[in-house]
Amino acid sequence: MGKKLTSRAEDYSKWYNELVVKADLAENSAVRGCMVIKPYGYAIWEKMQAELDRMFKETGHQNAYFPLFVPKNLFEAEEKNAEGFAKECAVVTHYRLQNDPDKPGKLRVDPEAKLEEELVVRPTSEAIIWNTYRGWIQSYRDLPLLINQWANVVRWEMRTRLFLRTAEFLWQEGHTAHETKSEAIEEARLMNNVYATFVENFMAIPVIQGVKSESERFAGAEETFCIEALMQDGKALQAGTSHFLGQNFAKAFDVKFTSKEGKQDYVWATSWGVSTRLMGALIMTHSDDHGLVLPPNLAPIQVVIVPIYKTDEQLDEITVMVNSIMTDLRSKNVSVKFDNRTTYRPGAKFAQHELQGVPLRIAIGPKDLENGTVELARRDSLTKEVIALNDLPDRVHGLMIEIQETMFDKAKKYRNQHITEVNSFDEFKAILESKGGFLSAHWDGTSETEDQIKTITKATIRCLPLEFVEESGVCVFSGKPSKRRVLFAKAY
Amino acid sequence: MGKKLTSRAEDYSKWYNELVVKADLAENSAVRGCMVIKPYGYAIWEKMQAELDRMFKETGHQNAYFPLFVPKNLFEAEEKNAEGFAKECAVVTHYRLQNDPDKPGKLRVDPEAKLEEELVVRPTSEAIIWNTYRGWIQSYRDLPLLINQWANVVRWEMRTRLFLRTAEFLWQEGHTAHETKSEAIEEARLMNNVYATFVENFMAIPVIQGVKSESERFAGAEETFCIEALMQDGKALQAGTSHFLGQNFAKAFDVKFTSKEGKQDYVWATSWGVSTRLMGALIMTHSDDHGLVLPPNLAPIQVVIVPIYKTDEQLDEITVMVNSIMTDLRSKNVSVKFDNRTTYRPGAKFAQHELQGVPLRIAIGPKDLENGTVELARRDSLTKEVIALNDLPDRVHGLMIEIQETMFDKAKKYRNQHITEVNSFDEFKAILESKGGFLSAHWDGTSETEDQIKTITKATIRCLPLEFVEESGVCVFSGKPSKRRVLFAKAY
Repeated sequence: MGKKLTSRAEDYSKWYNELVVKADLAENSAVRGCMVIKPYGYAIWEKMQAELDRMFKETGHQNAYFPLFVPKNLFEAEEKNAEGFAKECAVVTHYRLQNDPDKPGKLRVDPEAKLEEELVVRPTSEAIIWNTYRGWIQSYRDLPLLINQWANVVRWEMRTRLFLRTAEFLWQEGHTAHETKSEAIEEARLMNNVYATFVENFMAIPVIQGVKSESERFAGAEETFCIEALMQDGKALQAGTSHFLGQNFAKAFDVKFTSKEGKQDYVWATSWGVSTRLMGALIMTHSDDHGLVLPPNLAPIQVVIVPIYKTDEQLDEITVMVNSIMTDLRSKNVSVKFDNRTTYRPGAKFAQHELQGVPLRIAIGPKDLENGTVELARRDSLTKEVIALNDLPDRVHGLMIEIQETMFDKAKKYRNQHITEVNSFDEFKAILESKGGFLSAHWDGTSETEDQIKTITKATIRCLPLEFVEESGVCVFSGKPSKRRVLFAKAY
Repeated sequence: MGKKLTSRAEDYSKWYNELVVKADLAENSAVRGCMVIKPYGYAIWEKMQAELDRMFKETGHQNAYFPLFVPKNLFEAEEKNAEGFAKECAVVTHYRLQNDPDKPGKLRVDPEAKLEEELVVRPTSEAIIWNTYRGWIQSYRDLPLLINQWANVVRWEMRTRLFLRTAEFLWQEGHTAHETKSEAIEEARLMNNVYATFVENFMAIPVIQGVKSESERFAGAEETFCIEALMQDGKALQAGTSHFLGQNFAKAFDVKFTSKEGKQDYVWATSWGVSTRLMGALIMTHSDDHGLVLPPNLAPIQVVIVPIYKTDEQLDEITVMVNSIMTDLRSKNVSVKFDNRTTYRPGAKFAQHELQGVPLRIAIGPKDLENGTVELARRDSLTKEVIALNDLPDRVHGLMIEIQETMFDKAKKYRNQHITEVNSFDEFKAILESKGGFLSAHWDGTSETEDQIKTITKATIRCLPLEFVEESGVCVFSGKPSKRRVLFAKAY
């Protein structure tokens, strides 16, 4: 396992980078800014995918698949969207390699194989999808069109970090079309709500639902709903967004429908997405100086059993006991692994499972055989208990629920303790530096003020929460009148 | 639904293209050679994925994800592999777009944002994965390494056809590393066997397992195992391949391990894949002039229920009956949809479900309400029967199994009737043109003969079947001695 993790207190950023690699979640690749998602990390992502996919289908969405490439002339059709992404586009310009005449055994791009129209590797798929929807939508009978895609996308980022910001990442992107403006807004809200439910119930991460200020909006959107989470270092992380796109893409790609009354109109659109970035949120919300802490719902292995033995006979006896335990646990839908590797000692196994965040460890030694007991060790609280074998299945099943809830409650308590109302810019700056977290402050509603606050403090408006109290106040920066507080924070 | 399909007899190729589009499986996109997989087609692909993924995990494999891009210098490291794919590589050369100074509102590639090292969009991932494995494999304890990836890949094809040959396609690629040569060969055989089992049992398509001749082998492989299927027009289709890669990639990327005995050696490799091409095999094996015919295992909807009514009261009565039928069928794990759309007449619904290959249709009209009966219509045989409501759940459950088996048997009978032993080149050419299918012929084992046969007849060696009878004979082309027959065919 190598040496211990850097502690969070010592260097939070280093702790994160080490943890991702040591817990076998992901690593950097030979391609600048692109990561390799390792099997253990991918298994967690698969659990997220399965649950999200189930929730999307339950709300009436179907999956489809659209091309990786977007021809440049389509990409530029919706101007704001194009402008927003142009600076980070990987571009395919050629379609063939050939032997390099100057370097035997090496290849070069074949200058004869230049594309007439360059292809943008999708940074998001609105353009290619809306160009397709033009053929799919003629009448109100074709609406609503509720489609999701699981895909890889590429945004050429200069400063990358595993999961949080990578040039290529995996995500899902929903793209829907509707008859009316209100129906589209309702869809955007609904999917933001699906994200909130998923992230809270499944990932045990509390989030605040809100809308973005104009300058933080998705390029091409009229309104961006979002869920915002708080990491342990007091920085916020945008965990998902859902956009009401108005008729912008319908107009750019000429997607019209005939209504029941025979009138022609442009359709109304939404798009919404979450990505492998959620892995970063998962890690930074729950993990500790010993490594990853996984909520049971997302753990590829919920329970690991480690035998403690000196003789082969002891191992045989333990194995018999473990087989029966595993049958019992599996019948309660608990995923369990017997770590009977002979190439590692129990201490090394304990360390590995701790590092990888397995929610519950069961250790069984010769004394347990005699007494009919086992030792349980919880990863979240690092507490241990010895219980009778007979009580094990119910206790483990109960603990899966308890650990999930405890992790959420702990994260929510931390988050709530880190929402601070501030009423002056001095207070704003002081709290931001000392305590961090979300600052709930009055703002005059202008991009100018937002920009200046960002320049001075690096804090941005994370969202205008959907739940808020109307109250008169003055902007912490400009002193101009304001009717509500918004949430500022430094963010990932 | 538009007008009828072109019949297979009239123009097989046109029939296929029309069917794919009209049954809502896929369509061409604005990107040359890239397809859009529509929701109905994607739902079938998801069923394939789920079953394959289950089979991979059951055989000890884990999923992971590797970058979309391969730096050119890594791509060229394994020379044969690089040479094999160089001519069809999409290449990213730039990472930014900018406003075109000559054309307001348009974008152009920013000439300042040229990559130092070009990036190949993966046509297959051996290079990037083996470059990663170097860091993952040190000792025998790290082996075997059994990894699979679900991904999109790009091969710039000049002539494309939906599902069969597209510039971008979806696939899975397994990449494994082993201590010994024999273990790696065993893995390659095992996965070829997994593919055969999946395609036969799940897709109801009979296949022949074999190995490829040298000239048809995967670029960089020492042996390519394959499964070959036969389409209704007498052409063969390679449905999956599994490669024994020897130590070629381990040497190219310097991947060594220390054995139990403390000796250093290069590891042994396999790779194996199936793709959305399987959708083409599915369509061309089973479908008819009325449209798609789906085996129950792959059908997104196994049973559709269409109400026949004149009054709203009748529809209400039918609905009550249907709700109870749906509960019964779902309890038997049959997926069922009630098509109660009021915007289409029963005839139009029948035509659509026929076109989309729903295995079983249940029609319920006023007479059925009186008599306590329903009408069943099988898509595969186009036969109908009226049965008592009480018998419905068992009958439907039984039919799901029966239809699956009948479809496989029918396809197998056709396939077996189209394997013809030929003993002279005249016979070879005559049968190829008149009857098509697989030609079982003696071959002298040389690439020269293979090439000449291909030039003259367009037939290639599909495989050297794993099951064969040793028999002395002479090559149909050269007259040189041969010890076994191999299978030739024209192929997709």
